Amino acid sequence: MTIYDKLTLAWRNQNSLVCVGLDPDYDKIPVKFKRGQQPYFDFCCAIVDATAPFVCAFKPQIAHFAAVGREMELVALLAYIKDKYPHLLTILDAKRGDIGSTAAYYAKEAYERYGADAVTLSPYLGFESVAPYLAYADKGIIVLCRTSNPDSDWLQNDNSDSIPVYQRVAARVAHWNREGQCMLVTGATYPQELATVREIVGDMPLLVPGIGAQGGDLAAVMNNGLDENSMGLMISSSRGILYAGEGDDFDGAAARAAEALKNQINGYR
Amino acid sequence: MTIYDKLTLAWRNQNSLVCVGLDPDYDKIPVKFKRGQQPYFDFCCAIVDATAPFVCAFKPQIAHFAAVGREMELVALLAYIKDKYPHLLTILDAKRGDIGSTAAYYAKEAYERYGADAVTLSPYLGFESVAPYLAYADKGIIVLCRTSNPDSDWLQNDNSDSIPVYQRVAARVAHWNREGQCMLVTGATYPQELATVREIVGDMPLLVPGIGAQGGDLAAVMNNGLDENSMGLMISSSRGILYAGEGDDFDGAAARAAEALKNQINGYR
Repeated sequence: MTIYDKLTLAWRNQNSLVCVGLDPDYDKIPVKFKRGQQPYFDFCCAIVDATAPFVCAFKPQIAHFAAVGREMELVALLAYIKDKYPHLLTILDAKRGDIGSTAAYYAKEAYERYGADAVTLSPYLGFESVAPYLAYADKGIIVLCRTSNPDSDWLQNDNSDSIPVYQRVAARVAHWNREGQCMLVTGATYPQELATVREIVGDMPLLVPGIGAQGGDLAAVMNNGLDENSMGLMISSSRGILYAGEGDDFDGAAARAAEALKNQINGYR
Repeated sequence: MTIYDKLTLAWRNQNSLVCVGLDPDYDKIPVKFKRGQQPYFDFCCAIVDATAPFVCAFKPQIAHFAAVGREMELVALLAYIKDKYPHLLTILDAKRGDIGSTAAYYAKEAYERYGADAVTLSPYLGFESVAPYLAYADKGIIVLCRTSNPDSDWLQNDNSDSIPVYQRVAARVAHWNREGQCMLVTGATYPQELATVREIVGDMPLLVPGIGAQGGDLAAVMNNGLDENSMGLMISSSRGILYAGEGDDFDGAAARAAEALKNQINGYR
């Protein structure tokens, strides 16, 4: 099964375009998990169990584990999702980008060590830096195109360029996408650029962060980003779901936030 | 002591602009180390001990450890260098790049967990993605500007841009560099662009990969890249030193290769 097949099935069967970002912040993890040996794993599994009915994908962010030496909990988390929710996509959010010989090691990290279905990458070093990932036929890459943060126009979208960088990235990634493994990151905070990207890449899946804490406009995202089948988007939310509630009901609050986002999104489809 | 102070002292006292990249490839690690529990650590320490007299910096590449779950050996390696060669710069080659809240975790990983003096970063997400690193006053960042690999012109150096991206990156990083913590990656394979970067950034230190396996022109690099004090460059070599020899004399061969590169470079100063 290709990554597009898996994602399309998840979109259809879950009737959801929601991706939950797993960005565990120790200070916000409920106290009961901190008594155990694997607070990051236990907290994220509880979030996964609570929100799985309402999502198409989970996206653990690796720095939140690596900063504190918790890689083994991330390995366990991805294995847990794969075992219990094999129909949902797993995305390792790592934004890697290096020359080919090193990219092969990063691909091994993402796909073999962690077993993720897809990984986020930077386009800065060009095709050489993504080729080793594409050698994994059943896996996907999600390349940064137009990021959600405010301070990147000077590089990604400079008016004086004949073709802005984010559009060049979109066109290049579409060109690299011979086997249907490529996707793009396009932030919800720039819905007009999202429309342009959609025109360039056809029905390529887009991962859309920036809803919630970053203030993206969901209505505009949906209007500009859906593909012809009213799919094509993974709308990612992290903090808005992980920390929707505090105390004992954190998982109930997370489930309600995920379901509410799913329904809100589906209201625009 | 600032990172520039540390680097300048290393350049002067070592009389060397050589940076050894520590990119351990299991297949090429001498058999004797594979019998032990920490083959990556033991091999890299042997290379460090052999080459330390001839270099200003060591640059471990994190994917080579992370792909195989050997982060603890990388932690130990950086602690070993810091303990035994505190006068030499340590650069974590990680090429991170993410939004601010996540960048803070990556900065913690590089500087606190691994204790590196500096870390390589991608410019794609702009200032927000580097700001958390600059909060560490005695640490440095080395931002990708013009990379050494051949397939990145369409993004980094497109002729149709009024100002090519790599020049915009150089100018931005110079602007971010209020406290003297910023450096750039400029590949040896593009010596003309290296000259342009040097014009833009003044005496900012430049990390130059691409000598050796990638075929960069050392004479042109030296001619175009030196600062006014005949310093300003860290010329990085990895495979050409790590795997200069096979069998029992791997470390002697590495030492000779590092010394030869040092002398070759100094011949141009």
